[in-house]
Amino acid sequence: MSFKLEETSGVTAPKGYKACGVTCGLKRSGAPDFAMIYSETPCVVAGAFTSNIFAAAPVIYDRELVSHGKSIHAVAVNSGNANACTGEEGLKDARKTAEYVAEKLGLKADSVLVSSTGRIGVPMPMDIILHGVDLAVDALAEDGGETAARAIMTTDTVPKAACAELAIGGKTVRIGAMTKGAGMIAPKLKPTELHATMLCYVTTDAAITRRALHECIKRAIGASFNRITIDGDTSTNDTVLAFANAQAQNPEIDIDTPEFESFYEAFEAVTINLAKRMVLDGEGAGHFVEVTVRGAASAQDAKICCESIANSALCKTAWCGCDPNWGRVLCAAGYSGISFDASKANLTFGGLPVVKGGMDAGTPEATLVEILRQRSWGLVLDLGTGGNGEYTVWTSDLTHEYVTINADYHT
Amino acid sequence: MSFKLEETSGVTAPKGYKACGVTCGLKRSGAPDFAMIYSETPCVVAGAFTSNIFAAAPVIYDRELVSHGKSIHAVAVNSGNANACTGEEGLKDARKTAEYVAEKLGLKADSVLVSSTGRIGVPMPMDIILHGVDLAVDALAEDGGETAARAIMTTDTVPKAACAELAIGGKTVRIGAMTKGAGMIAPKLKPTELHATMLCYVTTDAAITRRALHECIKRAIGASFNRITIDGDTSTNDTVLAFANAQAQNPEIDIDTPEFESFYEAFEAVTINLAKRMVLDGEGAGHFVEVTVRGAASAQDAKICCESIANSALCKTAWCGCDPNWGRVLCAAGYSGISFDASKANLTFGGLPVVKGGMDAGTPEATLVEILRQRSWGLVLDLGTGGNGEYTVWTSDLTHEYVTINADYHT
Repeated sequence: MSFKLEETSGVTAPKGYKACGVTCGLKRSGAPDFAMIYSETPCVVAGAFTSNIFAAAPVIYDRELVSHGKSIHAVAVNSGNANACTGEEGLKDARKTAEYVAEKLGLKADSVLVSSTGRIGVPMPMDIILHGVDLAVDALAEDGGETAARAIMTTDTVPKAACAELAIGGKTVRIGAMTKGAGMIAPKLKPTELHATMLCYVTTDAAITRRALHECIKRAIGASFNRITIDGDTSTNDTVLAFANAQAQNPEIDIDTPEFESFYEAFEAVTINLAKRMVLDGEGAGHFVEVTVRGAASAQDAKICCESIANSALCKTAWCGCDPNWGRVLCAAGYSGISFDASKANLTFGGLPVVKGGMDAGTPEATLVEILRQRSWGLVLDLGTGGNGEYTVWTSDLTHEYVTINADYHT
Repeated sequence: MSFKLEETSGVTAPKGYKACGVTCGLKRSGAPDFAMIYSETPCVVAGAFTSNIFAAAPVIYDRELVSHGKSIHAVAVNSGNANACTGEEGLKDARKTAEYVAEKLGLKADSVLVSSTGRIGVPMPMDIILHGVDLAVDALAEDGGETAARAIMTTDTVPKAACAELAIGGKTVRIGAMTKGAGMIAPKLKPTELHATMLCYVTTDAAITRRALHECIKRAIGASFNRITIDGDTSTNDTVLAFANAQAQNPEIDIDTPEFESFYEAFEAVTINLAKRMVLDGEGAGHFVEVTVRGAASAQDAKICCESIANSALCKTAWCGCDPNWGRVLCAAGYSGISFDASKANLTFGGLPVVKGGMDAGTPEATLVEILRQRSWGLVLDLGTGGNGEYTVWTSDLTHEYVTINADYHT
């Protein structure tokens, strides 16, 4: 591993970025609800967005700018209102927010992106939003990454930021990032698109081509955010954005080079780190469970089977109760729709044999309960088809706290 | 409607059937756990079974006999052990149970079916099971339908039985039935197969051909059990069996006749009645929600969209909290994978407009809360594609009680 990773700092760790998180009044709790990231020098940007048909206004707005390869200087993010299912007015509000940020920072309007997360279907209270812009522009700071990570939180309980550092062409390059969950989190089947309910912002001071940064996003999503599920619901607002401002002054990184592979390795590590922490901080999550299926006829079969297990309400409640009820795992594999021979399935919990040849492997239940009592543990289901299809999904359990959060979210 | 339906009696309502429910000791609670249905005269039988790859031993056993068109006299059902993922021994145990029932009742071994429901992966305690057979054979009674309905319950809170009565060729024909849920309940996509976690037994004294009875099962499943989901998990033990003993002495019913349509109408009504009551009695269910999608490009699209909404953890928890958070409904439709135009979607709750053209329709929230406070209510999502694809699913909410039942089921 030719990089160093730490779970602090975040988007202001790379050179040339300022950020902040402020309270503009969208959340009744009074918690910070408006964040901004700003680079003095223009950034190459790559992004990935939800494929939900009800894509939120900021998703539609950003997707357009990112796909046209615009140089970007800033992104403004509000939490507390999703600006989704808000029609033409919602799109105007997204544009107006971006334009106001640009005006305040002396930028071109099409160099600013916007993101939103919160309740769907509520018109944006633009007076509050524009007040947020005023506050945020004044609060931008070189060490503002941590406050920004707090301000994008909704039902998250902890801010989630990370930073990787590596050398490229003799220069120190940093990759910083922040993310938020914690509900409407689910992967989907298209491998190069993003389908998780989440926001993630990656900043780097590396000089890198747009196509190379896009390749990083595309590959990293398949290795990180597309592998997580908390509740199986795929949001209207999912957004991953990566910014590169070239301030590290390294020789520009392009694809198909050793430098790209080094950079990507660190980039991927940052996204995997954040994806796993998003599951650990998933709504009501008491346990983090790594679900691996191998020996499937294809990787696609393994993925379908993983997701069936990871989204099963009966598996997730058993894990909540530390109950090694492996029948629920086999059941979820058995209805997933893929083909395999029930009598060849083997299953382990934390490396211990649970099922051999489709039947109880005889490990004492008390031993298995000890595994399931761990905050993080993993299961491996080998389907024994003779194929080498393999996939891994990270998920959380289904708890009383999850029901409390989501039955009472609104009131 | 040319029949009369009541929600009582059940499998002993038709002539010539005896039934019972006894306690043999499979359940730690001491609740009844062994049921039997018996017809003195041989029955034509049709059935439908789970397509889960880990199909339980009794499913494998029954499927074989039913597919060969054997004449059947009895079915023995235990609750408390699923006899699933129990390998060759499990199959031997299923056979041994059937053979012992046959011996005690003076029948041919291949005229007895068996069913099981309960925990997966635990070997059958055959001493207890055979003791159950002894008790049940002695307890068979002409009014035993209600005790049988109680003995097949697991996490169900009430027994569920129904009876329809109609005239065929001047004779009174009855269709009785009992069913149990209440977890691992989910529909699947193949329209003529059964994929719900459930047991259902239908008895009739009608004279009816095997192919006509099979047609009843096939059509009725698509109209009833295949339309329900409680937790999205499809069991290893799902079984629907219909028995017809011809004791009503009506002219034999065959397909493509007016008599068949009359009989089927009553048959379907019994299964729909039981399917809905299964959802009402779903694990932890506080609300029954009818989810209808119309205006889809195809019926299949409407079905996919219905199931996405009905299985959404975020929708189900909102319904638990009587929260008219319609954004979660649109979100679940939007990630279901089907195509439609977000700006043409209309949604109603209890007939009141909630969404028009993809946006808030303006009905006051307090009015919608009143709808959601009802024990049973319905939503209709019109996708406005210009197509006339329509489908309906019945589902329950996701509650604290559901988590309690399934996190603590084992301990």
